[in-house]
Amino acid sequence: MGRVRVALLGCGSVGSQVAAALAEGSAARAELSARAGAEIELVGVAVRDADRAREGVDPALLTTDAAALVRRADVVVELVGGLEPARTLLLDAVAAGASVVTGNKALLAAHGRELHAAADAAGTDLYFEAAVAGAIPIIRPLRESLAGDRVQRVLGIVNGTTNFVLDEMDNRGASFDGAVARAQELGFAEADPTADVDGWDAAAKAAILATLAFHTPVTIDDVHREGIRGVSADDVAAAREAGAVVKLLAVVERSSTVDDAGNAVEGVQARVHPVLLSRAHPLASTRGAYNAVFVEAEGAGELMFYGQGAGGRPTASAVLGDLVTTVRHRVDGSVGPRVLGHADLPVLPIDAVRTRYQVRLVVVDRPGVLASVAQVFAEHGVSIETVRQRPDGDTGGGAPGSASLVVVTHTATDAALAACVAGLTELDAVASVASVLRVEGDR
Amino acid sequence: MGRVRVALLGCGSVGSQVAAALAEGSAARAELSARAGAEIELVGVAVRDADRAREGVDPALLTTDAAALVRRADVVVELVGGLEPARTLLLDAVAAGASVVTGNKALLAAHGRELHAAADAAGTDLYFEAAVAGAIPIIRPLRESLAGDRVQRVLGIVNGTTNFVLDEMDNRGASFDGAVARAQELGFAEADPTADVDGWDAAAKAAILATLAFHTPVTIDDVHREGIRGVSADDVAAAREAGAVVKLLAVVERSSTVDDAGNAVEGVQARVHPVLLSRAHPLASTRGAYNAVFVEAEGAGELMFYGQGAGGRPTASAVLGDLVTTVRHRVDGSVGPRVLGHADLPVLPIDAVRTRYQVRLVVVDRPGVLASVAQVFAEHGVSIETVRQRPDGDTGGGAPGSASLVVVTHTATDAALAACVAGLTELDAVASVASVLRVEGDR
Repeated sequence: MGRVRVALLGCGSVGSQVAAALAEGSAARAELSARAGAEIELVGVAVRDADRAREGVDPALLTTDAAALVRRADVVVELVGGLEPARTLLLDAVAAGASVVTGNKALLAAHGRELHAAADAAGTDLYFEAAVAGAIPIIRPLRESLAGDRVQRVLGIVNGTTNFVLDEMDNRGASFDGAVARAQELGFAEADPTADVDGWDAAAKAAILATLAFHTPVTIDDVHREGIRGVSADDVAAAREAGAVVKLLAVVERSSTVDDAGNAVEGVQARVHPVLLSRAHPLASTRGAYNAVFVEAEGAGELMFYGQGAGGRPTASAVLGDLVTTVRHRVDGSVGPRVLGHADLPVLPIDAVRTRYQVRLVVVDRPGVLASVAQVFAEHGVSIETVRQRPDGDTGGGAPGSASLVVVTHTATDAALAACVAGLTELDAVASVASVLRVEGDR
Repeated sequence: MGRVRVALLGCGSVGSQVAAALAEGSAARAELSARAGAEIELVGVAVRDADRAREGVDPALLTTDAAALVRRADVVVELVGGLEPARTLLLDAVAAGASVVTGNKALLAAHGRELHAAADAAGTDLYFEAAVAGAIPIIRPLRESLAGDRVQRVLGIVNGTTNFVLDEMDNRGASFDGAVARAQELGFAEADPTADVDGWDAAAKAAILATLAFHTPVTIDDVHREGIRGVSADDVAAAREAGAVVKLLAVVERSSTVDDAGNAVEGVQARVHPVLLSRAHPLASTRGAYNAVFVEAEGAGELMFYGQGAGGRPTASAVLGDLVTTVRHRVDGSVGPRVLGHADLPVLPIDAVRTRYQVRLVVVDRPGVLASVAQVFAEHGVSIETVRQRPDGDTGGGAPGSASLVVVTHTATDAALAACVAGLTELDAVASVASVLRVEGDR
């Protein structure tokens, strides 16, 4: 049996699990080697402080010189995160003929095209199952299982922190701030939760999913992004009343628009924003810090993948699965399927996105208000599906004498809806537009 | 770009979809070829009657000589089902250096070891995503994504017909016969539903899942099998009352027993039988003809895969995904990961299986009955978790003056439970043991 040298960059919650599995003499390493068909040897672990002991890691393996370590490896496992020095280290690794396993979503979402092109040119592997939805196999199914199909749409709950926060608001009627505080207490949210609650993390994952699903390079800059800071306890309560739940979704889909010359343009969309989702939708029961990804494909129909989206051990499982695959490929002299898009479809702007909306209004409680509100929707070509009206704006937070009006529309463009909302705020009878949420999952 | 010759054996509901995707000049074929990195050419379709026209299939491709067709192909796609001539054709194909894609669960469950060994010896691919749970990617995740993990247990709803029947009984209070008749009416069950309702289909899939999950050859003969004919409307109603649902599950798991010499033996179990499943379990909401597979792995934790388990188009999606992969491998000169078990664990007999049970008794409605029933459980070392007692055996179908007793046990072996049931039937106070169901999913 041959020998494959593995360099590990990073020894945090995931890296330490990987290091433990690859410890010399461990049963796990023997098992992984048997599955890969080569002796897997951990040749070094790059860390910031090599003097600090890591449980289960041979101190002789620790080094602060990641650049030198990379040059001694056949496979580089990158778990440091961030753009630099990760990007340079991985480009160097690939240029030297090493394969790469990474869980670095930010790097892939920013520089995926460059990294994939470099791996293609060098004929090496670039695997990244851990970058989206932790332990849940979603990258490999999209890259390989669905290679004979045409994916239409992917809806993902891919950020555990925001799912926990929204779940907490739904289950306990907590405020956004209260739910974030509780998530922090329980270790599900960082002290600075910005990357999660503002949708940055989910947007990086959306870019990766879109790239794979549509064989088209999509970066995080292409992803329309709205976080959940604007979601109020009232929004969640109103959703509950309507048999729905508020979720932060990553949505990537095939779509089309019409250009200035009147020609149809086929393209893709990628967006992250809170949505109203019917409780009957399979994604709606994704609880707490779990993740789930729902795929709609032409042939396969609806598929769902569910599991733990984060955590050291689950994420290490995804990393080790990729490691076995890349080692096998080195033994074989083969590489995995290429990711870079032969399709290369345009990414359409958010203005062209058509979704359904729920608009929640606080209005004056008097006859004729509904008629004038409906008139504004009609003027902007936005068709109304349902209206719920309630005297006393208790879920709208309105004053006595006010009422709450919840309007759900048929599909409309972002642009039409925005114009409609502007029109509504000008009505005397409308005290405020309390919230606007997209509706997904039951078209 | 190279050229890869594909032979299709069978042109039924799945085969005709595959043939249509590979029709000369089709956009689908061009797309699949681009993804695979070689021109995919359909060189023939073996059918029983070559004179009958098939929509979308060039009549010149039809042949009744499957043996000759196999010799002209680089990849053989087998969708005829059954043991022979499929087995001989595929062994011939592999011996001639061709790769194989098959959806034939019966063949794999009976002769998987022989076929995998032949493919290993010849250095060709044997792919079979379509054999379990239709379009749901479960084979590839087990074979590759979880290659760095240790799977403990797989619970699968892998037969859509029985799931539809049980769902119908749950939703409408239908009898078993009534639900089967409705499934036949809607095309979800065959005129002869034996293979489905007696658990043969699920048992074949259990054998395949166990082989992959535990790197150990398991055949259908190793699978303990009980169908759903014995599930009554009363069982389903009692389950509902207990917040549970009756499902036919394929269960494969790591387990251990003690041999005659008192030594612990590590092994695996594979079984198919109806179970009581808490409605809170993610599998419980698998409705109608859908399939779902729940995986428990040491690192990854709990994963679930959900989607359409049957049907021409969904199953063809799985076949075409495998086709793209095998064609890529031929271009590369590589092969996919080997399936055959380096672990080769013993398959433990059903007697050694420990599960919880629900025992439903019809008893005489008089004081002291519960005490004597409990005594029998105690004598056989079966510990009781809960008892529900109901005067008037209305869910037990008992006569006036009788009562129904529903006992849920802690885990016990099959052997202990059987002895306990024998003891119960000897009690004067017990009119009948109405049903015994295993309880899964909430230990």
